[in-house]
Amino acid sequence: MKHIHIIGIGTGNPEHVTIQAINAMIAADVIFLPLKGAAKEELAEVRRDICERYATRPGIRISEFALPQRQTADRSYTQSVDSWHAEIALIYNELISGLPDDGRGAFLVWGDPSLYDSTIRIIERVRQDTGLDFDYSVVPGITSIQALAASHRISVNLVGKPVEITTGRRLARDGLQASTTVVMLDGEQAFAKIDDPDAEIFWGAYLGTKDEIVRAGRLGDIATEIQALRAEARQRHGWIMDIYLLRKGRDFEE
Amino acid sequence: MKHIHIIGIGTGNPEHVTIQAINAMIAADVIFLPLKGAAKEELAEVRRDICERYATRPGIRISEFALPQRQTADRSYTQSVDSWHAEIALIYNELISGLPDDGRGAFLVWGDPSLYDSTIRIIERVRQDTGLDFDYSVVPGITSIQALAASHRISVNLVGKPVEITTGRRLARDGLQASTTVVMLDGEQAFAKIDDPDAEIFWGAYLGTKDEIVRAGRLGDIATEIQALRAEARQRHGWIMDIYLLRKGRDFEE
Repeated sequence: MKHIHIIGIGTGNPEHVTIQAINAMIAADVIFLPLKGAAKEELAEVRRDICERYATRPGIRISEFALPQRQTADRSYTQSVDSWHAEIALIYNELISGLPDDGRGAFLVWGDPSLYDSTIRIIERVRQDTGLDFDYSVVPGITSIQALAASHRISVNLVGKPVEITTGRRLARDGLQASTTVVMLDGEQAFAKIDDPDAEIFWGAYLGTKDEIVRAGRLGDIATEIQALRAEARQRHGWIMDIYLLRKGRDFEE
Repeated sequence: MKHIHIIGIGTGNPEHVTIQAINAMIAADVIFLPLKGAAKEELAEVRRDICERYATRPGIRISEFALPQRQTADRSYTQSVDSWHAEIALIYNELISGLPDDGRGAFLVWGDPSLYDSTIRIIERVRQDTGLDFDYSVVPGITSIQALAASHRISVNLVGKPVEITTGRRLARDGLQASTTVVMLDGEQAFAKIDDPDAEIFWGAYLGTKDEIVRAGRLGDIATEIQALRAEARQRHGWIMDIYLLRKGRDFEE
């Protein structure tokens, strides 16, 4: 039977790749690399670099494919995501159908396939919608949360306390709910919209790459600096991927 | 200056180790391996196996040290953790003091040093309490959350929804707060104490090792089975490490 590996490759540092990921790449007949438009060309370069370093068995084919843009006009967020996934499922179906019988394909996923990524979801959709006969497995990878914490040399949680992982949209709406809140996918800098000046922020952009920027401090003191830094970096690169952790309280406070 | 690498090594599958972790191990003069008593001898074996596989440069010294037990009598949870950390800090201080000038030491940490682990915290404590002169850096590793999600081939989050990571104690007290709740460090099987029979549970023990067990289903249907399975496995091995994810709702529900 055909087999697909969904492989987490970390967030930009090629050394964050695991031995399991390398072995799955080496076992592949074809590695599928998504292209997300010119702005994200640097991310495509990281993926190519990883393939060149690790997928060294002769005969592995690298197949680049264009990912469609998500359409947002006249639809709700979930409708928008749902129909985008349907489009991508058609592409995956073609890619997998093109594999030889008993062939092995690999999708490389930024970060970890289980966190704010839909490759698993879309692969399941292909199986259910088309009846295409293949199996798949998931190889975990280092997330940007872990890269952020490692760069700042911090624990994500306070001792014995919970952690919330959420989106910018939800932070702006609900404010800080937990002693640790990690915010991913925030295009609107929700950290600057909440009224919690004494919270600490640990921010990072382009984590793991040579362009990594990190800042930490009291939110009330550095929110404006981070906004400016972010705007300038985004302008210069043409794109940005950033993440931050907000913390209230200290270890060993009862 | 002396340098310490705090290295995440994943949760039992030696292939979850990253290239960055391997390079940090290879660069070390000494790798420090904690021993946590006879019951956890299997975990010590996994650490030794990782050193044998990857720390292959001749001359690397492996230094095993006994970790004290946490004392819980007559003190609160945070007092108990605080004084335990103070004890471990004394041991770390000795280990680091024993490194040659400009020497490199490595602590191998189960999972990722940033999540429900205190090595970073204790290393900071050594620096602050003793003034010992050394620098350190953190190498992220695959967590049991990621190993769990990969084995079940699931996304941790629902589309655009938040995730809570918490402890068994807190789940038992507060119940399910988020659409996804990941529970770590649960010695009391709090999943069986909450009143949410329609939630889905994705459970795993000994993740990444040859003894891995996973179960998934409707909480009301399989909570009892998981409790029995867990008790039996714990009895047989003399110890257990498990984790689970609880989910309410589905993708694309508005």
